[in-house]
Amino acid sequence: MNYSERSAEYRNVINEALADALVLKGTPKLLRDAMKYSVDAGGKRIRPCLTMGVCDMVNGNRRMAIKLACGIEMIHTYSLIHDDLPCMDDDDMRRGRPSNHKVFGEGQAVLAGDGLLTYAFEWMLEAGLNFNDPNYYRAVAEIAKRAGVSGMIAGQSADLMSENEGIKNEAELNYIHTRKTADMLIASVLAGAYCGNPTEEQLICLENYAQKIGLLFQIKDDILDAEGDFAVVGKTLGKDSAHNKLTFVSLYGLEKAKVLAESVAREAERKLLDAFGDKCQYLYDTIYYILNRSN
Amino acid sequence: MNYSERSAEYRNVINEALADALVLKGTPKLLRDAMKYSVDAGGKRIRPCLTMGVCDMVNGNRRMAIKLACGIEMIHTYSLIHDDLPCMDDDDMRRGRPSNHKVFGEGQAVLAGDGLLTYAFEWMLEAGLNFNDPNYYRAVAEIAKRAGVSGMIAGQSADLMSENEGIKNEAELNYIHTRKTADMLIASVLAGAYCGNPTEEQLICLENYAQKIGLLFQIKDDILDAEGDFAVVGKTLGKDSAHNKLTFVSLYGLEKAKVLAESVAREAERKLLDAFGDKCQYLYDTIYYILNRSN
Repeated sequence: MNYSERSAEYRNVINEALADALVLKGTPKLLRDAMKYSVDAGGKRIRPCLTMGVCDMVNGNRRMAIKLACGIEMIHTYSLIHDDLPCMDDDDMRRGRPSNHKVFGEGQAVLAGDGLLTYAFEWMLEAGLNFNDPNYYRAVAEIAKRAGVSGMIAGQSADLMSENEGIKNEAELNYIHTRKTADMLIASVLAGAYCGNPTEEQLICLENYAQKIGLLFQIKDDILDAEGDFAVVGKTLGKDSAHNKLTFVSLYGLEKAKVLAESVAREAERKLLDAFGDKCQYLYDTIYYILNRSN
Repeated sequence: MNYSERSAEYRNVINEALADALVLKGTPKLLRDAMKYSVDAGGKRIRPCLTMGVCDMVNGNRRMAIKLACGIEMIHTYSLIHDDLPCMDDDDMRRGRPSNHKVFGEGQAVLAGDGLLTYAFEWMLEAGLNFNDPNYYRAVAEIAKRAGVSGMIAGQSADLMSENEGIKNEAELNYIHTRKTADMLIASVLAGAYCGNPTEEQLICLENYAQKIGLLFQIKDDILDAEGDFAVVGKTLGKDSAHNKLTFVSLYGLEKAKVLAESVAREAERKLLDAFGDKCQYLYDTIYYILNRSN
């Protein structure tokens, strides 16, 4: 199976499990609809696909991986709903559809986000009582940490502050992206690893991998934004005009940002083959999928 | 020790543990400050005190109870922060101080709430790796469920809907209060019980107890509101004028609501002595503390 076939298979498994998870008979219809609206908006499911891919790579317990992958996708989705709120990024659209609060109102959107975040833990923990495996709980704890106030939420908070004050330097840019983007990717791959019996060396390799693809993701986003802006309005490259934000392109220029992306991709590969042998193909392909994507 | 001494002792233990938990070295200062602002606002800590009280009643593991009690208080606090937001209840004040978003802004208040909710699980799960006790995880799963979309958040969502449509009948009033108030009280007592080795009968008794004190809490709130309104403006008792909401007083009248409160208190007592013997004193006293409080 090639990369896109494997990803499609993982997505099918995840989407089916998410549909099961979100039947939610005891939940008011409006709240359930609001939660499902954003989960069903889909997207590439890159995080849960990585959890599944790593689980398969380490011959882990797939039933565990599916539960954790769903939890991760619920947490990712909640973060998008809250991020789009008027008091945050104030985005009316998400993935080509009106954002959650535009459809359900701000109050219910806050609750849909709270609901997905809490339900992620309910869903993972209820399953944990059956698995009764310390490694499974290690995965859930890792997800909580990376999603939390030293991880993703720390990044959101710093990003929100920077809207007023601007991002001052590369260190700050890296701080925000590591937490906003890389931390949940790290959680995703480590969760997959904990479905097997990973060695310390494998965990370190996976953390480096996810950190680098997180960075790569962001550099590539900045490149695509800049090229899109350039193509559309022919404007001068530089600080993102909409937000006056520091980006990797404004920092290095477009050509150097592309070179940086290539080199970060190579850093992501590092030791993958040593740690996992031929079985690392899916993780390897994910790097180049991120590097070469066109949207 | 009498009830208020015992509560004060529990509060001390909890406040110390919360202070430790919220050192949060890896968190941006503004976010940490926002989280601490609302946690430090204090209040009676009735939920975590119940967790401690039940743990002691069943001779449970106090170290577990403290971790769970802190998690519960963090979740309760997040719910207040989000509840006060302009898109929800729009309250400028909470516990005599400006509400979180008035001090830190709406965006950071959303994140402070998200942060406390996520950190509650991080905090409880990290400790779980040391305890490695299935009953501890049962407690964490119970907390997630009761705080979630079939519990507290379901109640919030239904309550928010009712702001537009009005609460239609007693069944709906009960639906909202059971979920908004009773569910986290149920989580609090069951969490305490899981710190020991509770029997099925004890768990059922505790769930009934918490359900009833949740109801009692709400009836008493409605009585205090009505008496306060009456004393201040001499207005006719009936639908809560500020929100045009159905309350237990508007439903039954003040005198009958008082009789109902007494009878719910007696229902809360039911089987407590059978299930736990003399050791149920703290839980017993909590009922009458709620019934007789004057604010």
